[in-house]
Amino acid sequence: MVVVGAGPGGEVAAGRLAEAGLSVAIVEADLVGGECSFYACMPSKSLLRPGALLTEARRVPGVREAVTGQLDVPAVLRHRDEVINNLDDGGQVPWLVERGVKLFRGWGRLDGDKRVVVGDEVLEARRAVILAGGTTPTIPAIDGLAEANPWTNREATTAKEIPASLIVIGGGVVGAEMTQAYASFGTRVTLVEGEHRLLSREEEFACVQVTESLTEQGVDIRTGQTAKSVRRDGDQVSVTLADGSTVTADRVLVAAGRTPQSAGLGLDTDGYVQVDDRMRVPGKDWLYVIGDLNGRALFTHMAKYQAAIAATDILGGDMVEKHLADGPGSPRVIFTEPQVAAVGYTAAAAEKAGLKVRVVDVGTEANAGGAFTGTSRGTCRFVLDEDKGVLVGATFVGTEVADFLQAATIAVVGEVPLHRLRHAIPSFPTRSEIWLYLFNSLGI
Amino acid sequence: MVVVGAGPGGEVAAGRLAEAGLSVAIVEADLVGGECSFYACMPSKSLLRPGALLTEARRVPGVREAVTGQLDVPAVLRHRDEVINNLDDGGQVPWLVERGVKLFRGWGRLDGDKRVVVGDEVLEARRAVILAGGTTPTIPAIDGLAEANPWTNREATTAKEIPASLIVIGGGVVGAEMTQAYASFGTRVTLVEGEHRLLSREEEFACVQVTESLTEQGVDIRTGQTAKSVRRDGDQVSVTLADGSTVTADRVLVAAGRTPQSAGLGLDTDGYVQVDDRMRVPGKDWLYVIGDLNGRALFTHMAKYQAAIAATDILGGDMVEKHLADGPGSPRVIFTEPQVAAVGYTAAAAEKAGLKVRVVDVGTEANAGGAFTGTSRGTCRFVLDEDKGVLVGATFVGTEVADFLQAATIAVVGEVPLHRLRHAIPSFPTRSEIWLYLFNSLGI
Repeated sequence: MVVVGAGPGGEVAAGRLAEAGLSVAIVEADLVGGECSFYACMPSKSLLRPGALLTEARRVPGVREAVTGQLDVPAVLRHRDEVINNLDDGGQVPWLVERGVKLFRGWGRLDGDKRVVVGDEVLEARRAVILAGGTTPTIPAIDGLAEANPWTNREATTAKEIPASLIVIGGGVVGAEMTQAYASFGTRVTLVEGEHRLLSREEEFACVQVTESLTEQGVDIRTGQTAKSVRRDGDQVSVTLADGSTVTADRVLVAAGRTPQSAGLGLDTDGYVQVDDRMRVPGKDWLYVIGDLNGRALFTHMAKYQAAIAATDILGGDMVEKHLADGPGSPRVIFTEPQVAAVGYTAAAAEKAGLKVRVVDVGTEANAGGAFTGTSRGTCRFVLDEDKGVLVGATFVGTEVADFLQAATIAVVGEVPLHRLRHAIPSFPTRSEIWLYLFNSLGI
Repeated sequence: MVVVGAGPGGEVAAGRLAEAGLSVAIVEADLVGGECSFYACMPSKSLLRPGALLTEARRVPGVREAVTGQLDVPAVLRHRDEVINNLDDGGQVPWLVERGVKLFRGWGRLDGDKRVVVGDEVLEARRAVILAGGTTPTIPAIDGLAEANPWTNREATTAKEIPASLIVIGGGVVGAEMTQAYASFGTRVTLVEGEHRLLSREEEFACVQVTESLTEQGVDIRTGQTAKSVRRDGDQVSVTLADGSTVTADRVLVAAGRTPQSAGLGLDTDGYVQVDDRMRVPGKDWLYVIGDLNGRALFTHMAKYQAAIAATDILGGDMVEKHLADGPGSPRVIFTEPQVAAVGYTAAAAEKAGLKVRVVDVGTEANAGGAFTGTSRGTCRFVLDEDKGVLVGATFVGTEVADFLQAATIAVVGEVPLHRLRHAIPSFPTRSEIWLYLFNSLGI
């Protein structure tokens, strides 16, 4: 086996196959552990949680009085540095070594069937090749942007100094999360988004509630505004928007989507690589593509999931199952304050898919458990398929709702009939009583 | 309809039946809203969460530096007073009134078929009577205890002043939670438990982890020790234990179980009232008993669940379903720090029930999401029925795990086959990846 790319997907695939007794080589041109471990999920959450926790501490009577100081940003950054091990992948390599996976450092390129070239080395796979090359930040063709030395997620998540002001181009997940993090550090953030709202794939109320919260935190949100040109002037960067206005800041962060890292891999595409449900490239039964590179669901957890599917297939098993918590319906959490956690269809997506939909909305804190958090912001939405009588989607917005999601994911994947689901009684007084509200709304 | 007892169960039953068009009377001798709203779940959580939140704030780098003060106990008590509305049920009554439920204040007593006497009034039910009388704290027959004017949950949850020292008799849920609350207020707490461990119905590791944590917080835990005698001496109370040692404190709290409030109801028992799965008393098709009083599961959420079952039955429907998240397997959360949340069987209970059990344990924080909490304490256990290939129980111990429970409850109630459950992918990096560990352990 040859695995190209040692991000979370590649690591899981290599580990599983090696544990099953196969001889596995893994190829990595950058850090073992991938974008996620060093420049994305992990550092971003280490930057985000302290601010969220402090916000909640300041809201709750009895605790707020104990909080007299400010977020200690240098301490947050030090902890971030621990989480990313100072950009040293020495903590990640042993996991592979212990499993007998052989690591080749360098750029891996397909060079014929089952053959991967890394520098001067040629790796010949007997069984299969898995490509897990991931994505890189997209730098859109905005006049002057590339020349202005913009930050991407990499610089934003690993910064050693906090700019006084920051312009964020793009209001998707990365843009919203980095806006949240830097706002909590005291940076003046201007968020520019071409669409008319942030987080455009999620329920509109999620966008509204995150937008309200960021605005209250002092963020200047400019939606429906594309950046037309960018100019660097010494230490300052200016961005001119479509309406002619100009914003100036110390830094500009580009968070305008991801580009698959397929060019230079020896494929006949430089876009996302199409695969079947077993993660195989059609017509090449020895070639699998997992993770961001196949464009199915750009999430670490789904890369790991696809790794398991591919590895199982290679080992002669079959773990392919159709369900709604995959692809665009994949479970997802946006770690803003409030957080947004969603799985399956949004109401709009379900309707677009032709489902007969019933929607139940409830305030996240509108139950007994909500009396003990310090906020009243947040809505939960359950999306039901009325014909099948099952949950097909859910969105949770609120403080610390990330771990609310697994319940909905299990209900969606398990296709638990609502008349049965109704017997899953949330404990009183937990905020999980949002589920009880669902049952009561349905009169079941 | 006549409903006797306006705690959460009685309220839900009365509300449902009134909404369905029935003429409903509800009888309450104490506060509308019941023990839960004023003397149990609600005030106890308002006393517990601030301490838990402050503890977490002190553990997380960047936040801990902002926390220079102590828990503001008077502020906690003021918020508690808001939560319990200063022991005024005026906030609860409108919910009933809006639904057309007629409230009778006084002690309701059965006086023949379908007849309830309240003081001078006689209420004749046409359809049925529901008894929802709840429980009161048990005062065990310990020499001198009753005379020593002990606290029960009522005084502990509503105290206006915090004693410097407290002896808690009983290490079940109430004892453990009140020990936790008062320890967080700075009270020197001695916890006396006759069994050899606390929380004896839960997994042993849960007991161990809560015991370790309380001990670190300065609690003096005396397990395997029964209280033999209690003496009041002015402002101080002394408790002599079975080993001859004596503990002295400002207050003594009795948390030694509950006694059903069945005496004086006109029943032929003063114990728990046996009911069938529809909550009916066998042989009396007009008499339903719900909540604590039937002894099936002494939890507010299960009282409300039973209320729905009884109301549905009275209205000619049927919502009885057999599942494992009921009775002794009911979902349950203990709001200590760490919290304990459990559903279905413990490993021991599953084995005792004759199931072929597989157990998977994982550290609650032993995943990427755990890097962002400030603790490493806590274990999660999944209990699987190997013959059926489903989850039959789960226990979560850790900081803020209360809302982890609903996922397990849905899996247990939904009997989602493990090979299907495996596709419910937790979002990275959330602590819900404990589920991924489960799947990986099973090699699926």
